[in-house]
Amino acid sequence: MREKAHIREVGPRDGLQMVKTILPTAQKLAWCRGAAEAGIREIEVTSFVPAKIVPQFADAEEVARGALAMGSFRPSVLVPNLRGAERAFALALPQVNYVLSASEAHNLANVRRSTEESLLDFARIAAVRDQRAGTRVSLAGGIATAFGCTIAGAVSEARVVEIAVRLTEMGADEIIVADTVGYGDPGQVRRLMKAVIGAVGPVPVACHFHDTRGLGLANVTAALEAGVRAFDASLAGLGGCPFAPGATGNIDTEDTVFMLEQLGFDTGVEVEALIALRSDVESWLPGERFSGAIARAGLPKTYRSHSKAA
Amino acid sequence: MREKAHIREVGPRDGLQMVKTILPTAQKLAWCRGAAEAGIREIEVTSFVPAKIVPQFADAEEVARGALAMGSFRPSVLVPNLRGAERAFALALPQVNYVLSASEAHNLANVRRSTEESLLDFARIAAVRDQRAGTRVSLAGGIATAFGCTIAGAVSEARVVEIAVRLTEMGADEIIVADTVGYGDPGQVRRLMKAVIGAVGPVPVACHFHDTRGLGLANVTAALEAGVRAFDASLAGLGGCPFAPGATGNIDTEDTVFMLEQLGFDTGVEVEALIALRSDVESWLPGERFSGAIARAGLPKTYRSHSKAA
Repeated sequence: MREKAHIREVGPRDGLQMVKTILPTAQKLAWCRGAAEAGIREIEVTSFVPAKIVPQFADAEEVARGALAMGSFRPSVLVPNLRGAERAFALALPQVNYVLSASEAHNLANVRRSTEESLLDFARIAAVRDQRAGTRVSLAGGIATAFGCTIAGAVSEARVVEIAVRLTEMGADEIIVADTVGYGDPGQVRRLMKAVIGAVGPVPVACHFHDTRGLGLANVTAALEAGVRAFDASLAGLGGCPFAPGATGNIDTEDTVFMLEQLGFDTGVEVEALIALRSDVESWLPGERFSGAIARAGLPKTYRSHSKAA
Repeated sequence: MREKAHIREVGPRDGLQMVKTILPTAQKLAWCRGAAEAGIREIEVTSFVPAKIVPQFADAEEVARGALAMGSFRPSVLVPNLRGAERAFALALPQVNYVLSASEAHNLANVRRSTEESLLDFARIAAVRDQRAGTRVSLAGGIATAFGCTIAGAVSEARVVEIAVRLTEMGADEIIVADTVGYGDPGQVRRLMKAVIGAVGPVPVACHFHDTRGLGLANVTAALEAGVRAFDASLAGLGGCPFAPGATGNIDTEDTVFMLEQLGFDTGVEVEALIALRSDVESWLPGERFSGAIARAGLPKTYRSHSKAA
């Protein structure tokens, strides 16, 4: 029995956030369907930000409903505030991912309020969630710029740990530690992730890395050593942050799955199926920059995955 | 005092092996001069293969003599056989890097003889070296396809360790373990490098990684954990192997230096100077594929290098 490692595909949200093409709803859903067929069980399918800020997500409800209807994976959505969370709750989505920035400057640029105000907003979201009837919605607390900030520079590791603890106390069911701008290095990742995991107890902790400075997969290995077993990734390495200059690219889903499988983890995902899906996504998004080594070089003859997509 | 980590620039050899442009000798030497000015102290400056096989290296003697005359770094050359070694010895170069493949199939494709015959050739080279008067030439024994082979697939780790031990017994002053085709993963690297370091005792062991499948820097971190403190790298990620389909790219010198410095190692190299040099090299080699994240994204505000080029 190999140990499990979990991939959450965030391409339909983080990947589409900065692209030039407004992708039709049907193609967003085809992306989700293809990822699920490749074996991915968690997909962040859209963002409940106002459509006037990010027109790409004007069809957020429709995408979320379509993803829910598929039934083949667990869809989650990103929300920046209580209003977004309420939209997600109304659809009875199983998971909602809230994000704030550990860097005050980044939080201000992103949502025009202090990190403390964003924490209190999370508490309100959790309270609304707890008052709802029906199946309990899982709430993830995402901590952006946890490894540094293009505006402020260094971010205190103690502050990141404190935010993680407070999110957990306020009702987060998962903590997502994000290197939004690609500042993290493996030493820092190992240290901070050990501290966060130690501080939040049994609450699962995921990492969200960007490969902006080439250290994305090295950071995954460091996080694995610290005990992290869940990673956000984006097909073809799409992604970026509007407030992180040059911050192109999440870690690439295909390459991350490849590495995890080579390291002996069971991701349940078939790289070949992801590469086929990637060709479709590339054809839908002309003029975008796609990254990723496995799609270019091919799997090695020694690839030892036993993962079979369901 | 930070711990030292050593970078050997191999771009003028491995990087130029597959490019379309025959670079003039003056530009090859300008590359070496620029790398030395950035703080690099070891450069593999050329290859003593027959010019009819790789026309790029028709000026090997001229490059080696020019590099020696600079006096600002330690030049080494790659040699595939005794004939190449004799050319290097005649120039009184301080170091000669011999390479053979752990994979029989790759060794046959590369130099038309068995790995065992190549080992005996190394013994002859060491014997010739030992009989020479004057300053003792340092001999490195390079083990290509140590992590797998595009022709043969898996390569036995025990065989790699055995080759490393035999090279050492035959007089190697350094062992270079090479992932020629980009098959290595961090788990394998940690395991094999620990085994090689344990087996060859005090002889220094370097790693030579290709980033073909995106795991180059993750493999560097794994090698660091195993105790490796010396790495081959190529400016702008140039490089490839004629017998490794799709095997584009050594690990990128700038990105590797960046990561090592972020991890707290003292490389003595200034990334900014490498990026300036990279622009020159790119302008000399039109139509080539250059990789590397730092040159595109820039150093983070949190970059903590204290390395100053000499």
